[in-house]
Amino acid sequence: MCGISAYIGPREAYPIVINGLKRLEYRGYDSAGVMIYDGEKMHLTKTKGKVSDLEAITDSEPDRKIGNIGMGHTRWATHGVPNDVNSHPHYSQSGNLVIVHNGIIENYDTIKKELISRGYSFKSDTDTEVLVNLIEEVKITEGCKLGKAVQLALTNVVGAYAISVFDKTKPNEIVVARLGSPIAIGVGENNSEFFIASDASPFVEFTKNAIYLEDEEMAIIKLGKGIKVHKIMDDSRVDPTIQKLQMSLDQIEKGGYDHFMLKEIHEQPKAITDTFRGRMLHEEKIIKMSSIENHLDKFLNANRIIIVACGTSWHAGLVGEYLFEDMARIPVEVEYASEFRYRNPIITNKDVVIAISQSGETADTLAAIKLAKSKGAFVYGVCNVVGSSIARETHSGAYTHAGPEIGVASTKAFTTQITVLTLIAMKLGEANGSLAKHTFENYISKMQLIPRQVEELLKIDDKVKEIAEVYKDAKNCLYLGRGFNFPVALEGALKLKEISYIHAEGYPAAEMKHGPIALIDENMPIFVIATNRGHYEKVVSNIQEIKSRAGKIIAIVTEGDTTVKEIADHVIEIPDTEEALTPLLTTIPFQLLSYHIAVMLGKNVDQPRNLAKSVTVE
Amino acid sequence: MCGISAYIGPREAYPIVINGLKRLEYRGYDSAGVMIYDGEKMHLTKTKGKVSDLEAITDSEPDRKIGNIGMGHTRWATHGVPNDVNSHPHYSQSGNLVIVHNGIIENYDTIKKELISRGYSFKSDTDTEVLVNLIEEVKITEGCKLGKAVQLALTNVVGAYAISVFDKTKPNEIVVARLGSPIAIGVGENNSEFFIASDASPFVEFTKNAIYLEDEEMAIIKLGKGIKVHKIMDDSRVDPTIQKLQMSLDQIEKGGYDHFMLKEIHEQPKAITDTFRGRMLHEEKIIKMSSIENHLDKFLNANRIIIVACGTSWHAGLVGEYLFEDMARIPVEVEYASEFRYRNPIITNKDVVIAISQSGETADTLAAIKLAKSKGAFVYGVCNVVGSSIARETHSGAYTHAGPEIGVASTKAFTTQITVLTLIAMKLGEANGSLAKHTFENYISKMQLIPRQVEELLKIDDKVKEIAEVYKDAKNCLYLGRGFNFPVALEGALKLKEISYIHAEGYPAAEMKHGPIALIDENMPIFVIATNRGHYEKVVSNIQEIKSRAGKIIAIVTEGDTTVKEIADHVIEIPDTEEALTPLLTTIPFQLLSYHIAVMLGKNVDQPRNLAKSVTVE
Repeated sequence: MCGISAYIGPREAYPIVINGLKRLEYRGYDSAGVMIYDGEKMHLTKTKGKVSDLEAITDSEPDRKIGNIGMGHTRWATHGVPNDVNSHPHYSQSGNLVIVHNGIIENYDTIKKELISRGYSFKSDTDTEVLVNLIEEVKITEGCKLGKAVQLALTNVVGAYAISVFDKTKPNEIVVARLGSPIAIGVGENNSEFFIASDASPFVEFTKNAIYLEDEEMAIIKLGKGIKVHKIMDDSRVDPTIQKLQMSLDQIEKGGYDHFMLKEIHEQPKAITDTFRGRMLHEEKIIKMSSIENHLDKFLNANRIIIVACGTSWHAGLVGEYLFEDMARIPVEVEYASEFRYRNPIITNKDVVIAISQSGETADTLAAIKLAKSKGAFVYGVCNVVGSSIARETHSGAYTHAGPEIGVASTKAFTTQITVLTLIAMKLGEANGSLAKHTFENYISKMQLIPRQVEELLKIDDKVKEIAEVYKDAKNCLYLGRGFNFPVALEGALKLKEISYIHAEGYPAAEMKHGPIALIDENMPIFVIATNRGHYEKVVSNIQEIKSRAGKIIAIVTEGDTTVKEIADHVIEIPDTEEALTPLLTTIPFQLLSYHIAVMLGKNVDQPRNLAKSVTVE
Repeated sequence: MCGISAYIGPREAYPIVINGLKRLEYRGYDSAGVMIYDGEKMHLTKTKGKVSDLEAITDSEPDRKIGNIGMGHTRWATHGVPNDVNSHPHYSQSGNLVIVHNGIIENYDTIKKELISRGYSFKSDTDTEVLVNLIEEVKITEGCKLGKAVQLALTNVVGAYAISVFDKTKPNEIVVARLGSPIAIGVGENNSEFFIASDASPFVEFTKNAIYLEDEEMAIIKLGKGIKVHKIMDDSRVDPTIQKLQMSLDQIEKGGYDHFMLKEIHEQPKAITDTFRGRMLHEEKIIKMSSIENHLDKFLNANRIIIVACGTSWHAGLVGEYLFEDMARIPVEVEYASEFRYRNPIITNKDVVIAISQSGETADTLAAIKLAKSKGAFVYGVCNVVGSSIARETHSGAYTHAGPEIGVASTKAFTTQITVLTLIAMKLGEANGSLAKHTFENYISKMQLIPRQVEELLKIDDKVKEIAEVYKDAKNCLYLGRGFNFPVALEGALKLKEISYIHAEGYPAAEMKHGPIALIDENMPIFVIATNRGHYEKVVSNIQEIKSRAGKIIAIVTEGDTTVKEIADHVIEIPDTEEALTPLLTTIPFQLLSYHIAVMLGKNVDQPRNLAKSVTVE
């Protein structure tokens, strides 16, 4: 996820673009850049860091700020570490074209090789620089206009994008296109000016008229003339709808949601897709992860895999333990990073350590990595922030492509971490023969369905709200699950703790009898995951034990369930999938539930008391 | 622990002895036996099972019940499985002497060999049958009376005991002796009758006059004449004090404590001593555990040790993980038995599985053992009930000698489990060279001090009561610890949950920042273990984080601590020891605290709602 902000019109472009970028920083904040065209020359300023860092540079050279056309970008790295060179905008080889891009070009490597063979050279590691040169190459070879060149180039591209392209040889137009990443166009009176941005927040004070491109659409925006919208694939004309903006600035930044957390919960179908995109090739039925393939012997010969993490990532690690042991038959130990680092752990050069952290900056996890490395272990990182300390300190790793997570209570980071761990487990299971071919392929098919199933599941929001209303005043809750869903119970409880300050605790369902059952009375809601393949009968027995002590049961069941429905006070259905993949679904209702309870209790959902988004102290 | 009940006098002995045994069943209930002397012949009835099983047998043969002298026993096995033969009373070879015994004769094996060489043969596996024959042998070779023979025999014995011996050739007397196990003598008017029992409960309705033997004392009780008390070692005469019984029957059974739980908490110095007795030889500075030595190669060549358990035993297992990894450098994985058994775990014949259970009947743990055995793993059991299912199903194992635990909330079972695991870790560390000789010997010295330190620590009861008074109305609590004391935090929280129904949760201290810290406000008591060697500064930082959010801190610190004292709201000091041994001390204040809070809240401490002592269902 990145933020795009551009302007063409009679005003000074710089302040509009920069303020726009600041409003878009929730979409990414690892580097920023801006191009201002002064009618003759393009001035490009880029830097690692926040938009404020960018401003510091331009402030020292005010000439860079002058001009009526501007295009800016705030980045959330996906390819190439965050640094000045990899920051957007990117020029084409000739220096005539300039682009900002949000998304991932999956086949950039193939295209890059082709362009190199045609004499192109590249300054950055980004997929974006490949795209702008592809457009230039098409423009030259086809001898066409910018709009046409963009359209033809995009038909050769696999991936997701929102782009904005400017050609200084035709300085009265900007071309934008969208597939999978949003783009909004603000339309000034009589087409006198245009604003282009990832959402409407950068231009809401200038115009209330906005056009939102749909997927597979592109627009050629001409100053004084207007906007032409086409389908990218067949060039057919589309009549754009001009919408009247009614949301506040705050609402626009949150994509129309009341809180970042809710927005991020709803982003999960896309985040999960982005995370397996290019790694799990559904049609070929393969998993392609060079970070694993290049070190396959390390994994396959490992004595054991030790997963180190904290908090929500630790819960994802526990799911990982079940996945790895089940699919790849490699023994796994999951450790709290803080405990691991201080106890002279047993690690050798035959061990693989997997470190998980959303921010990639978690102090205890980072220290655990250094310790593991010093003992000769191979260390693999799973984090969300490209170029973070953990990404740099590990020998190899995979990014979750969740995009920036602003809400302090982690949601999409958790499900994308599980997605990555599932892919690795499948890959290793296939490689060492623990997973039969048809099982492996079945997992791919079922995984492919997950984003749509999550989408489906998010529609139960109203039902979850009703349940939240009933239990919002509970002082204590228990969350129970077995097997793959035991860590989901822990995570469900953590979510409620974090944002509603209700004391919730997760347990493996069968452990309840060994103590926690004493807590149960008629005031105690108990959330139980009872999917149909996970030792269903055992969980049903646990539910009956609770009911016979008057506890309230809210059960997550597989659609079509009948047994639990008869006993439980409330049931929430999830779509059917393989048991190993259920954590990606069962976690969703718990996220929604915590969210609604916290909102009903009037808590600060996105910034709960006492908590920090990334724990960079020990 | 066993129960002894005997009678000599004018009444029918049988109903007195049998009712007495029933009152003593809290001391053990795996087998029972009774001898009734009808003036001519001794009738011996013994059976595996409860006293009611014994009654069923005698009821079918009423002749066995007739007589004025009787001696009965309800057993808690320590040597030899519970069966009819191993049950007490035991005859001597000649059939003249009969004995009941409570305790352990450590050097029984040496004595047994000597007696065999002198022509004795043995029916049972017990140390008790050895003792009665030693007395007979001394009596014959020295040509002395029973009292003298008992005295001389006991000077050759190492161990702990309470015994009652009868000689049918001198049927007007009973000889009793005590070292380490209690014995009370009820005195009838004008020495017309005597009652002998492990506590006064069997005879409280017959007489209020009782003599309690002290350690190393013996008594010769003569009908119509009176009681002579001697020191065992030097035969010097002691003037016995006759005490007036003022306690109720219920109080007597609980050893004067209000609840079994409190009694069991206070029994821990003895229970820990009993558990390392004969295994850790302090003077020789060795650990002798044939259950380990006979399978040393299994342990030393293990890929990993997998500990399976539930509830409190699972917490002991977690302490075991820290102990094994620290002292013996063998990788350990601790699993909930319920999770382990249902997830196709990775186990091979290179793995050692240690199963921990107080009752030895925990259904999930038993199932995990069967699964592990089917996969070829070597399975070692740690349980408290001799001859229990788990003891029978495992390849080898060690009993904790905690004695019967009646309170549902486990206390002495936990500390004795940790004691056994510590001994094993030390033994393995010594064997594979991970523990240097001086470190190993230092651990022995420090372990030897633990029972006295626990004794010392139990004296803080009043202080704990004050703290309980302050926080008894809390609705939620957190327990925090690091390293060896992280599992103690979990166990502390479980204790509070179990008997006070307050929602308490344990966490590794550093994890608090990753979520639970959101719960903290001025109403939240947080119990923190901050001993001086366990990453003290890190825990101090955690405490400061809590204080800055207004949480209430109750800290367990090492005596002499100054830093935490200044920050915490309350501190409880424990005596200094090695960090690895601190769990045996830090857990004590948490037990007392839970106990007092539950009592103050009017809860049923010994039988909390919803809980069963031994979870024999899945």
